[in-house]
Amino acid sequence: MYDLPKSVNIVEVGPRDGLQIEPKILSVDERVTMIDDLLACGFHDIEVGSFVNPKAVPQMANTDKVLEKLGRRPDVAYRVVLLNPRGLKDALATGRADVYGQISITASETFVKRNTNRSIDQTFEEFPQWIELFRAAGIDVTMIALMAAFGCNFEGYVPLEKVIGLIDRASRILDDNGAKLKHVTLADTMGWANPLQVKRTISAVRERWPDIAIKLHLHDTRGAAMANAVAAMELGVAEFDSSVGGLGGCPFAGHKGAAGNICTEDLAYVCEEMDISTGIDLDRLREVSLRVEQLVGHPLPGKIIRGGTLAAYKSNQRSRADVLAPTL
Amino acid sequence: MYDLPKSVNIVEVGPRDGLQIEPKILSVDERVTMIDDLLACGFHDIEVGSFVNPKAVPQMANTDKVLEKLGRRPDVAYRVVLLNPRGLKDALATGRADVYGQISITASETFVKRNTNRSIDQTFEEFPQWIELFRAAGIDVTMIALMAAFGCNFEGYVPLEKVIGLIDRASRILDDNGAKLKHVTLADTMGWANPLQVKRTISAVRERWPDIAIKLHLHDTRGAAMANAVAAMELGVAEFDSSVGGLGGCPFAGHKGAAGNICTEDLAYVCEEMDISTGIDLDRLREVSLRVEQLVGHPLPGKIIRGGTLAAYKSNQRSRADVLAPTL
Repeated sequence: MYDLPKSVNIVEVGPRDGLQIEPKILSVDERVTMIDDLLACGFHDIEVGSFVNPKAVPQMANTDKVLEKLGRRPDVAYRVVLLNPRGLKDALATGRADVYGQISITASETFVKRNTNRSIDQTFEEFPQWIELFRAAGIDVTMIALMAAFGCNFEGYVPLEKVIGLIDRASRILDDNGAKLKHVTLADTMGWANPLQVKRTISAVRERWPDIAIKLHLHDTRGAAMANAVAAMELGVAEFDSSVGGLGGCPFAGHKGAAGNICTEDLAYVCEEMDISTGIDLDRLREVSLRVEQLVGHPLPGKIIRGGTLAAYKSNQRSRADVLAPTL
Repeated sequence: MYDLPKSVNIVEVGPRDGLQIEPKILSVDERVTMIDDLLACGFHDIEVGSFVNPKAVPQMANTDKVLEKLGRRPDVAYRVVLLNPRGLKDALATGRADVYGQISITASETFVKRNTNRSIDQTFEEFPQWIELFRAAGIDVTMIALMAAFGCNFEGYVPLEKVIGLIDRASRILDDNGAKLKHVTLADTMGWANPLQVKRTISAVRERWPDIAIKLHLHDTRGAAMANAVAAMELGVAEFDSSVGGLGGCPFAGHKGAAGNICTEDLAYVCEEMDISTGIDLDRLREVSLRVEQLVGHPLPGKIIRGGTLAAYKSNQRSRADVLAPTL
């Protein structure tokens, strides 16, 4: 009936995608504490910051110092975001960042122009340079992130054939430059996706490239993020970005139109309830969420924060597996 | 691939299930305005209040006066909640309430005791009296609402065989008393359900009683409500209770552990995006949600309120059907 994965890898992006929209700029020490708190919950993949222009994104300045203060953890990937060769150089210079061979593309001409001052064509033209830059650092480019993969506030819905066409173009350029596409992140950057569209998109990508791993990056702008995540899991998708507390555009912080990421603890909760393991200590994560609320100075939109986990109710009763078992 | 319904009937329960937990008690006129505002968005089913002890639920006192002030609308069902024969008598006396032949049962012995001071057995023993009372008013009992159908804060998970057993027992008592079960509401009263459990429960009920209509009443305590609704729709469920703005236990209003209903406009949005018609004017409903926030005096947890609908982006672009079409 379902192709639910047995386990899901949650990439915690709160310290980057979450904090970068907050009006309050956290100190290096606050960011380090937040990341350490999160790691204690069991994450193995965490976005710790970005190497971009600190004038454009002051919240992410000093990511090098954050990395320096974080202990070396061989079991943890400290992911970073970078948008240009300078960022790549800076990230590599830290010797601490886990730099992935990933190139970002965007499904909206208007959005990519506003975001990166490039056209979609220009993005693709720069692929060979990126592949070379990564290669010089000993990193194979194997990953594509597709922004605005489902819809765009400037251009509307993104048709499925456009998604497939863009991945195809990226894949061919990688091939032509001695690289190989192995991983695609589909990012619902502006919160347009619905569960039906998610299933159709994933099915189409799967049919065309059966061996490529798919990760989803979801925003909960209009309340569909969890349903979209479950839709993806029903097709076997086993990797998601998410943000502690739903940080990243809190609807109560006055960020006009801002779109919070899907909330990590809510996502982990739904996974665990469906017997999909995440390795996350939910109750501990809820405590971290409460501390992050204090740090940023406003309530976060996640539900587990107020609703609580089910841990307190789980003693002395039938197991989850027993409840889920299709006995009838 | 899916059994998605073509249309979904949304029963707006904000003026009852939503308001009854609010610390601020609205006046009759405020409640009437709220209901009229909602009806202007296209609802045909709305819970306008309850006939219960006003000392226990002061927010719902004067539901008779609310009904009196609401214009007669032959296209609208003014639903009410009642828990005892006195409530039924009062509701019928208004001549305005659309009283449904529904009896509530509960899947948790502890919860039903706390909520109604009865055991589950006692609830069933009272069935014949209820059937007679309704019959005397010319109403056939055809509907069962099962509270805590997925889990309970006092007793934990509710096993599927218990759900089936309770519906079976209710159905048999109806049969024995000349009534016929045609409609079951599965209520996730305390927000325990997950999408897998929802699918398994609905499948099991369907298999046993293929002709019974199923409605879901979902709370978003832990962020799973929308995913649960979509899971149900994928099995063809086409009726849901929901609450404007997610009213009904706002996580930001200090109601400890309170569980908001699934948010009406978010649910309607997800339906419409999946080409499931609801008859709801989403943009108008968002405006009503903003006014309800003013009425209750705190932000509501729904996402569309802050995230906006997609209406502004939808001009001059490909149609939704075109985007959703599996062209690849």
